[in-house]
Amino acid sequence: MTAPVRYRLIKTEKHTGARLGELITPHGTFPTPMFMPVGTQASVKLMSPEELKEMGAGVILSNTYHLWLRPGPEIVKEAGGLHKFMNWDQGILTDSGGFQVFSLAENRDITEEGVHFRSHLSGEKMFLSPEKAIQIENDLGPDIMMSLDECPPFFESYEYVRDSVARTSRWAERGLKAHCNPDTQGLFGIVQGAGFQDLREQSAKDLVSLDFPGYSIGGLSVGESKAEMNHVLDFTTPLLPENKPRYLMGVGSPDALIDGVIRGIDMFDCVLPTRIARNGTVMTHHGRLIVKNAKYAHDFTPLDPDCDCYTCTHYSRAYIRHLIKADETFGLRLTTYHNLYFLIHLMADVRQAIMDDNLIEFRQNLFDEYGYSDATTKNF
Amino acid sequence: MTAPVRYRLIKTEKHTGARLGELITPHGTFPTPMFMPVGTQASVKLMSPEELKEMGAGVILSNTYHLWLRPGPEIVKEAGGLHKFMNWDQGILTDSGGFQVFSLAENRDITEEGVHFRSHLSGEKMFLSPEKAIQIENDLGPDIMMSLDECPPFFESYEYVRDSVARTSRWAERGLKAHCNPDTQGLFGIVQGAGFQDLREQSAKDLVSLDFPGYSIGGLSVGESKAEMNHVLDFTTPLLPENKPRYLMGVGSPDALIDGVIRGIDMFDCVLPTRIARNGTVMTHHGRLIVKNAKYAHDFTPLDPDCDCYTCTHYSRAYIRHLIKADETFGLRLTTYHNLYFLIHLMADVRQAIMDDNLIEFRQNLFDEYGYSDATTKNF
Repeated sequence: MTAPVRYRLIKTEKHTGARLGELITPHGTFPTPMFMPVGTQASVKLMSPEELKEMGAGVILSNTYHLWLRPGPEIVKEAGGLHKFMNWDQGILTDSGGFQVFSLAENRDITEEGVHFRSHLSGEKMFLSPEKAIQIENDLGPDIMMSLDECPPFFESYEYVRDSVARTSRWAERGLKAHCNPDTQGLFGIVQGAGFQDLREQSAKDLVSLDFPGYSIGGLSVGESKAEMNHVLDFTTPLLPENKPRYLMGVGSPDALIDGVIRGIDMFDCVLPTRIARNGTVMTHHGRLIVKNAKYAHDFTPLDPDCDCYTCTHYSRAYIRHLIKADETFGLRLTTYHNLYFLIHLMADVRQAIMDDNLIEFRQNLFDEYGYSDATTKNF
Repeated sequence: MTAPVRYRLIKTEKHTGARLGELITPHGTFPTPMFMPVGTQASVKLMSPEELKEMGAGVILSNTYHLWLRPGPEIVKEAGGLHKFMNWDQGILTDSGGFQVFSLAENRDITEEGVHFRSHLSGEKMFLSPEKAIQIENDLGPDIMMSLDECPPFFESYEYVRDSVARTSRWAERGLKAHCNPDTQGLFGIVQGAGFQDLREQSAKDLVSLDFPGYSIGGLSVGESKAEMNHVLDFTTPLLPENKPRYLMGVGSPDALIDGVIRGIDMFDCVLPTRIARNGTVMTHHGRLIVKNAKYAHDFTPLDPDCDCYTCTHYSRAYIRHLIKADETFGLRLTTYHNLYFLIHLMADVRQAIMDDNLIEFRQNLFDEYGYSDATTKNF
């Protein structure tokens, strides 16, 4: 049996750990490193599937916890799965719901068996176990599933994180056993361990021994500094097998993407581009721009003069500002489209830089233009 | 000098007053009768211009009052006009702002000179005269402009409406004189007169003597019954010249569209399809459907099985219901798209029925399927 989700390494950049590759899924093969737009509730907010394809999205995310609560996995299954339900025929990845249980749900009680909690929508008592997460993900039918994990705060005590990592490993094993569709859906294990090197090592060792088709790195971008995140990646990615995809969860700022790629990450997701877009903020080749600001009222240039997306080739800052000020949602369609296009095309440029072995120079240019201070902890 | 906006009558239906024709504008020639989507604030809510074209929209509306308040006509003018500002290269029609001054603004004071009022947004004192409305519309640059009119309530006293109609005629003449771009923008006069036949006659006579390139019928769909509206149309449209387009303002329900066409109306606009769409209600060939309702949770059929729009060919009621329940705005994009497509294509079917001389039969089928009671006041 061939694994449904595979990774093909094409080349490693000469001066860094950056990998050019391909993620092979039942719904297509996608170049990596890649940024994956987030469609929490079976919709990438404000975007149509056709727009996502047009901008070059390959895999999109959806969320097990949210779809479990609403509309319920039985409805998605009855529809013929998430792809059919939401009209997306390319890759879909679902989170396990663990992160949302810990960040959104109320009255959490973690036991060896699983997590008891109350729905943040209805207040209803619910129980999520590793098996239940897998069952929901099997019903939803994404190409890539996540094991149920616990995501402890970055600055939790060593003892707590040690016990949590051990439990996450046991949960990963239970999830693997419960997985009903191993020939059509690839299940990833999630490496945890906060900032502790030995715990990240233990977590990676446990999961790699279970031979998942891919590995996620969780518990980052949760309040620690960029330097701390990069430091954790420095010692974590080398623990993961070269022939499997590596997914850094919940990271989406341009600097963090590039610094993750440099450390050997292949896949990223984040609500950042879509969330800030709905607040009227866009990413550009020259830094962030808050288009609502009064200074753009008479500015008839595009959001980003160096961008060739639909928004930037058809609309001005003045028009988009007007729409947002007037509560016209089309303005947020335009900013959302631009931000997703920006990150997806940034990754295409990153892939070219890997091909050309000039990723460090590419990074420096981006940091200079974007106005980033340098948070890296390693010299290349 | 050729008028910038012209009408070409192709044929009149054998059994009714329905006219098949073409509206010729500086931004294209469009078949009539037609339904025009409303983009009050320089955006048809949630829709892109490309989507509007894809569904067959020809002319769209925007609103002088709203754009005057925000972003201001000077910004639109600086952008190169409304077409360029909002990325719409087909026809645009603007209302004069009169209706909004009477329905939205506060502390109105009508004088011969114009209307003093307070902005509904800022509370600021403002003054709209016939000349000012034209100046704003000249700045905005639509293909079709409206004269400033007063839209009295349908059940106002005869004396009030008589005086109001006379003033609206004087305002129309002043607007015509103030019009700076008669060779690129067509200015319509608006026939008022509430339900009084002799006042409608006086209004039409006054305006026709000024030789506008087109005539609007205002003051309908403001609380009177469908039968009353049809009755007013029965005696009003025959007063208008055959070689000019006739626009019935603010009417958008399928029955009213057909009954208007039967009485010789060529153009319609209404916020109805977009407004009810954002409330989760859609028009179908089998009547209205409230897709939010619980009974559609497991319904994997399209909104309208007899519709071939993007929404109906790609998404189920269950998915759209989920999106709306989960506050995912993409659901409202889908219902908005469908409703506009429905009305635009209804008008295409109406044009075919005129061509085939079977509009009465077409109307009866629609009324039966939609569950309309018959509000017509005239036998054909």
